[in-house]
Amino acid sequence: MFKKITIIGCGLIGSSLLRAINKKKLSKQVNAFDKSKEASLFIKNNLSVNVCNDIHESVKDSDLVIISTPLSSYKEILLSIKSSLKKNVILTDTGSAKKEVNKIISNLNLQDVCWIASHPIAGTEYSGPEAGFAELFEKRWCIISPEENAKKDDIEKVKKFWELIGSKTKIMSLVEHDNILSLTSHLPHAIAYNVVRSAVKQEDKFKDEVIKYSAGGLRDFTRIASSNPIMWRDIFIDNSENILKVLDSFTSNLEEMKKAIREKNSDKLIQIFSSTQEIRKEVIKAGQDTDKPDFGRKKS
Amino acid sequence: MFKKITIIGCGLIGSSLLRAINKKKLSKQVNAFDKSKEASLFIKNNLSVNVCNDIHESVKDSDLVIISTPLSSYKEILLSIKSSLKKNVILTDTGSAKKEVNKIISNLNLQDVCWIASHPIAGTEYSGPEAGFAELFEKRWCIISPEENAKKDDIEKVKKFWELIGSKTKIMSLVEHDNILSLTSHLPHAIAYNVVRSAVKQEDKFKDEVIKYSAGGLRDFTRIASSNPIMWRDIFIDNSENILKVLDSFTSNLEEMKKAIREKNSDKLIQIFSSTQEIRKEVIKAGQDTDKPDFGRKKS
Repeated sequence: MFKKITIIGCGLIGSSLLRAINKKKLSKQVNAFDKSKEASLFIKNNLSVNVCNDIHESVKDSDLVIISTPLSSYKEILLSIKSSLKKNVILTDTGSAKKEVNKIISNLNLQDVCWIASHPIAGTEYSGPEAGFAELFEKRWCIISPEENAKKDDIEKVKKFWELIGSKTKIMSLVEHDNILSLTSHLPHAIAYNVVRSAVKQEDKFKDEVIKYSAGGLRDFTRIASSNPIMWRDIFIDNSENILKVLDSFTSNLEEMKKAIREKNSDKLIQIFSSTQEIRKEVIKAGQDTDKPDFGRKKS
Repeated sequence: MFKKITIIGCGLIGSSLLRAINKKKLSKQVNAFDKSKEASLFIKNNLSVNVCNDIHESVKDSDLVIISTPLSSYKEILLSIKSSLKKNVILTDTGSAKKEVNKIISNLNLQDVCWIASHPIAGTEYSGPEAGFAELFEKRWCIISPEENAKKDDIEKVKKFWELIGSKTKIMSLVEHDNILSLTSHLPHAIAYNVVRSAVKQEDKFKDEVIKYSAGGLRDFTRIASSNPIMWRDIFIDNSENILKVLDSFTSNLEEMKKAIREKNSDKLIQIFSSTQEIRKEVIKAGQDTDKPDFGRKKS
């Protein structure tokens, strides 16, 4: 489908993609570029792909270029590769926010480049090329957001690519993507960071105990709140408008709950707690989680 | 150790205890009482314990009585069983908040009753006797909070009981318990309920999409926010003082983050996200979670 694929950025996501492309034999030539020497060396030593030292060289003659770096690097990367891109290249990415990136691309006024954004909803709390694995995207959603004038054929190719990687795909506008992700992913992450910060204070005399007994709920938040800081900073800045809106809605819900606790308003509390039980049932029905009880993951 | 044990309340926790006591053969006679006819019938049909229809009968001659109901039922139960308790009985429970319960017990002025509160930090998002299983408490912490004048021997017996059930034990004052649990468990639950409420609004046009793509973080919150509403209402009312304090601290942390997002303050955001990464390392070091990446639980 693609004779030559280039991946720029070889962290958790980029290196997992490289592994998956190799495993599934999706391209004859696979180029990789990472500005970090350590990351490049790791890829060179552990994966059979062509690691390039020069970003211009890396994209030459590529049919598909995938940017898999933090969002804040996109502009610099795009300015660097702009003149080296093959005519009619398909350009995609793996970022978690889309609208601002799209503005950058529009402003660059790229000629004969087909921009079709991708967002594989996959990841772990770890970062770096050593954390990647080929199966990361299997059975996970990948949201595809093509620019308005993208060719149908090209969209189909990107869709097919992610499906061969193992993902389920969904085509969605950039605006819709950023809106939905602010709810399903950005809100929970913002909140998790603040829960952990509020529960564990370095100066608190109970700090060790709080960590020791964290299995009561806090533990799961520490996992969510340990993802890559640079990636999350970029997402929060890029999708700030949607995120601030949902955080305001969260704050007003929280204030309502605080009021109910203060007033020991039993009916109101039951109403709050029951409403979320219904939503859980819908999540299970939608196949997004198992209904097997989770009572603490086993050490392995 | 105990010739006769009575468990009042046969939900997830009570029925799991009944199962564990039977499995480990910890008592010659095991009595069970639940005010719900359905729950009593389920226990009668599925477990080999003596199901009592009368709460007074159930506690007679028992050496250990365990209350395993929502906190709001304690007062009524204690008033009912008060005159039927055996002399020098050990009375314990499995509740998640302690201070208010202790007040109730103090006010009842029970004679020759040794009150030693227990809190097994174990559970799933499910409720009811059919959700219980004997292994629920294995390798989990059980916090034991004896009243001030409890006999050493009795404390030792309760400790031994939980260890035979499979738990690790820790003795802690009631005040310390309520403080630590407000951070490790009550805060995360309060927040999870509000995250789910804020993300999924019945009237929202994106509601189905939000559920469909909930694997990006939200899914885990829906699980936490689907626990028993009555149990949580009682915890939030009983431990309201500590919970409101930590929720205020959470709100001010959140406001700080919102300000950083609004101002696109890159350094501040990186600082926030990095601080929680350190805490995650301490949680793993304390053996409270595995360092194996979690990338979405498999269906099973």
